[in-house]
Amino acid sequence: MTDFAATRALFELPEGIIYLDGNSLGPLPRAAAARVGRTITEEWGQLLIRGWNQAGWMELPTALGDRVGRLIGAEPGHVVMGDTLSIKVYQALASALAMRPDRRVILSDSGNFPSDLYMAQGLVGMLGADYELRVVAPEEVAGAIDDRVAVLMLTEVDYRTGRRHDMKALTAAAHAAGALTVWDLAHSAGAFAVDLAGAGADFAVGCTYKYLNGGPGAPAFIYVAPRHAEAARPALSGWLGHEAPFAFDLDYRPGRGIERMRVGTPPVIALAALEASLDIWDRVDMAALRKASVALSERFIAGVEATCPTLTLASPREAATRGSQVSFRHPEGYAIMQALIADGVIGDFRAPDILRFGFTPLYLSPEEVDGAVSILARIMASASWDQPQFKVRSRVT
Amino acid sequence: MTDFAATRALFELPEGIIYLDGNSLGPLPRAAAARVGRTITEEWGQLLIRGWNQAGWMELPTALGDRVGRLIGAEPGHVVMGDTLSIKVYQALASALAMRPDRRVILSDSGNFPSDLYMAQGLVGMLGADYELRVVAPEEVAGAIDDRVAVLMLTEVDYRTGRRHDMKALTAAAHAAGALTVWDLAHSAGAFAVDLAGAGADFAVGCTYKYLNGGPGAPAFIYVAPRHAEAARPALSGWLGHEAPFAFDLDYRPGRGIERMRVGTPPVIALAALEASLDIWDRVDMAALRKASVALSERFIAGVEATCPTLTLASPREAATRGSQVSFRHPEGYAIMQALIADGVIGDFRAPDILRFGFTPLYLSPEEVDGAVSILARIMASASWDQPQFKVRSRVT
Repeated sequence: MTDFAATRALFELPEGIIYLDGNSLGPLPRAAAARVGRTITEEWGQLLIRGWNQAGWMELPTALGDRVGRLIGAEPGHVVMGDTLSIKVYQALASALAMRPDRRVILSDSGNFPSDLYMAQGLVGMLGADYELRVVAPEEVAGAIDDRVAVLMLTEVDYRTGRRHDMKALTAAAHAAGALTVWDLAHSAGAFAVDLAGAGADFAVGCTYKYLNGGPGAPAFIYVAPRHAEAARPALSGWLGHEAPFAFDLDYRPGRGIERMRVGTPPVIALAALEASLDIWDRVDMAALRKASVALSERFIAGVEATCPTLTLASPREAATRGSQVSFRHPEGYAIMQALIADGVIGDFRAPDILRFGFTPLYLSPEEVDGAVSILARIMASASWDQPQFKVRSRVT
Repeated sequence: MTDFAATRALFELPEGIIYLDGNSLGPLPRAAAARVGRTITEEWGQLLIRGWNQAGWMELPTALGDRVGRLIGAEPGHVVMGDTLSIKVYQALASALAMRPDRRVILSDSGNFPSDLYMAQGLVGMLGADYELRVVAPEEVAGAIDDRVAVLMLTEVDYRTGRRHDMKALTAAAHAAGALTVWDLAHSAGAFAVDLAGAGADFAVGCTYKYLNGGPGAPAFIYVAPRHAEAARPALSGWLGHEAPFAFDLDYRPGRGIERMRVGTPPVIALAALEASLDIWDRVDMAALRKASVALSERFIAGVEATCPTLTLASPREAATRGSQVSFRHPEGYAIMQALIADGVIGDFRAPDILRFGFTPLYLSPEEVDGAVSILARIMASASWDQPQFKVRSRVT
């Protein structure tokens, strides 16, 4: 599907809002309420425990995993849904570390989500003092990969600036040094066509509540490359990752391939909401999506730079090194974003000075981008944002 | 609330079904579909990202945690919802182990959920060879607590037989030996009044899709005793357990008390379904519930023993040492359960020979218990269950 006026009609978008925050929480697919209602009323309500077999609940994590897998270039049968992104980061990282038992370093960068770093810190703290999380600046990553690095853990697209790492090149560099990679696709999946298989990625993880429109707190996913599928140990070894969950053996034996990365009981109701969104994504041509996303992003950059001279582009200017979001810096970024939201343009603010805007062709039109630019220009012109007393007054009125 | 005919009307129960499997998946609260629909349509659909603040999504895990907390005797402010039970087992266990750094043994029993043992095995495998998961028979637990035990990890109610451990006595024995306790309340929460504070429990975890009727894959909970709240390290240290999640610091600092046991983004839609169930539970008198549950259980035991001589009681006869489920053994248990389900009585089977029945006064009447007994008696009389060829034929017709 490449007709993005048609996909827009599949989403609920409130009147009077220009929504540039789909990179934080995607909007509601119109079919989701009915889809979830059916799972609740017809499946849970009428089938009760039989839903696990008769409604296919047990297979949802792998069935939906494959549908996400198409968007991220995964081989079929190598993605599974479940838990949260932070949990999946931990699981991927612990699995990868165990595959490099004579190395002790996790390499990451300061452009990663803090949560990914926190999870790594928790893991390192548990594994003992000789393990180390080494965090460098994004541009220093390639140079910091040495033969002490067990795992290179990166988020492909920087959550603040939209700067995009070269997944293929960095994966090759990691492999050349004997390290494995864990890629966080939180700001990639649904933003553009990811090519995990082509990049040779080892592990990947991501969430589905941003570009994938799965709803607040929607389940995460994990990918393990086919060549590691039978070697990786899940670390978080729960019963649904067991070879025979219903044998209730006392000893853990990993299930086949990606199945072993399942942990506990799948979140059926949340997966139903995600399914409604994947019904749309199944038909999206990712190359066309990317083209439209770049066009929207560049239209925004050009518009803002023409009308708001005090905003500084924080994102890469080159589309090839950018995800599907555009950020500008301003010392009064927080107050400016509050003013924008009050005027119906929803983006978000990231400390200390980032105004962040997501571009999502499935439900965002060029005219809305123009509308957002003119509202932003009006706000920037309406107060002297470099003089704090003006800013404060403008928030009171 | 003690009028269990009135609470029954609050649940959806299919016609022609006697549901004795609420210990596996509780039935649908009638209000859940509308409650979830409101979260989807009005909150996600209209508020979008603003739902985190304006709809209180961010506080749901602790707000609902306190409502579960009342049912399990937790001090207010010491329970939080999130993740799955297996993840919370891991988190509690890792946190407890870290508080006993000079000990290496996790003691558990063969009556525990295999999944809890699997999670412990995964953790032990990661921590290194000197750590050990020691599994003894349930009746040998008290004698096996020695000064090498760091953590006693038990499920209070055996998922197969309903046998209930003495939480207070075992916790005291663990403490006397210098060990901490992790109690899994999966078959306790909503089954009877648990008294975590009174028992002196250190950590507790549980799920909400069984007796608590939160829906398939509903979120889990974790409790940390107030005396450990500022000392426990969460191990799974995600951004929502950070002291200041939105500061996006690169270094983890644990949040206050139970907040630090939060990990990733909360599953808002699933929490909405759980909330509909807690609206009922908030009004339940747990002492009255327990009294009714014992009455239903004993009625069932008496009825089955009077009419089905080849079924052997697998549960403790003494109500005080039993949860809210009753199990019988039979070598052809699987086939018998299939026949029961075909005749509208839903219980479940647990290998190798356990027929398991849950008693849930909120929506189960004494008349239904009598009905289940007579259907079971008819099935047992209808075939010679000790001769496999009869059993096979009876399944074909």
